[in-house]
Amino acid sequence: MRIDIITCIPEMFTGTVDQSILKRAADKNVAHIHIHNLRDYAVNKHNQIDDYAFGGGAGMVLMIEPIEKCISGLKAQRNYDEIIYMSPDGELLSQGISNELSLNENMILLCGHYKGVDERVREHLVTREISIGDYVLTGGELAAAVVADSVIRLIPGVMNDETSALTDSFQDNLVAPPVYTRPAEYKGWTVPEVLTSGHEAKINDWRFKQAVKRTQEKRPDLLSEDIK
Amino acid sequence: MRIDIITCIPEMFTGTVDQSILKRAADKNVAHIHIHNLRDYAVNKHNQIDDYAFGGGAGMVLMIEPIEKCISGLKAQRNYDEIIYMSPDGELLSQGISNELSLNENMILLCGHYKGVDERVREHLVTREISIGDYVLTGGELAAAVVADSVIRLIPGVMNDETSALTDSFQDNLVAPPVYTRPAEYKGWTVPEVLTSGHEAKINDWRFKQAVKRTQEKRPDLLSEDIK
Repeated sequence: MRIDIITCIPEMFTGTVDQSILKRAADKNVAHIHIHNLRDYAVNKHNQIDDYAFGGGAGMVLMIEPIEKCISGLKAQRNYDEIIYMSPDGELLSQGISNELSLNENMILLCGHYKGVDERVREHLVTREISIGDYVLTGGELAAAVVADSVIRLIPGVMNDETSALTDSFQDNLVAPPVYTRPAEYKGWTVPEVLTSGHEAKINDWRFKQAVKRTQEKRPDLLSEDIK
Repeated sequence: MRIDIITCIPEMFTGTVDQSILKRAADKNVAHIHIHNLRDYAVNKHNQIDDYAFGGGAGMVLMIEPIEKCISGLKAQRNYDEIIYMSPDGELLSQGISNELSLNENMILLCGHYKGVDERVREHLVTREISIGDYVLTGGELAAAVVADSVIRLIPGVMNDETSALTDSFQDNLVAPPVYTRPAEYKGWTVPEVLTSGHEAKINDWRFKQAVKRTQEKRPDLLSEDIK
């Protein structure tokens, strides 16, 4: 997989792309992230990439021209499955969408900043708009990093233990059951006895019941009818 | 405001804390983020902070002891309004929660990693659990960065133009209207005439109608009954 991220603050990706799962995916040659600085496509010698909104109002708007040039250049080199604009009013990211995106070969993630991008970018250049949640961020950079992380970790070979991703929250419409590790007692707080019993069937049964109970308590909306 | 982030991958915050709005908030002395490396509180000379889950299964679990020591040390120095664990099954972050958190003085954000933290941390040490969305990430680091960004930008004095945050999506249960900037025509794609008319009342009216229309199309759930 190849993900091209277009941003006006490339430095924001230093810690995420160079560390953690994204670096591991690159080292294993499974997924590569390329960061493109929108200022390299600026419209004039002042490196301009944004301007005031037509009609007035606070906040700057990213201009169409640098974005269009960057996207055109990338599209000339390869086919993209999706050109995604990170936007708070986009389709809400879910585990299902991450699963779906993990099957793509090439994706562009476009990060807005300030008041967002010129509307014509959304009308003519992007194929999809995704939001990571109902809250506003300074820019699309963290949102793009979230999409990249949630998608790339699903690609086979990226995580050390592939079964690990399959037991995550949401993959079976249940949140994960509680987990405990050593010491078995800390400050008088103990772990449930069944977990140290060595009885695998009982442990699996306990975990399933705990997952259902916790889902009922915390996220009843996730439960399918047949489990209720 | 002071935000203490506890993590086992402090490097992941390099790009976010040193750049963008979080740096600006620190420069203006309005909000400071302190990153704490969980390995500094490791339980032995091998720097151990995680271990296998009791009862078996894939994935490592962050141990309670390093986390408890780090939190205790911080609590001995000041009072915290919230100790928040970033978890996919926590309360879903919304603009309302970000608004609420922006009134806090001191917060701890605890990042899980791998399979998460020992359940006793959640039972005894944290005051709140927040999720940024229904998808799984490699760790809580990006989620903590998202919370920090969405909260800190709301503190008066952080953004250059305070009216900018008030016209964001979600603050009035409407998504933002389309924005356009120069040039007025690009590749034959033009901006709506009203925006270049100079007629402020008409522009405001157009923007409100566009915001309602767009909310109806994209996020009808946000609309309050009286606007419907």
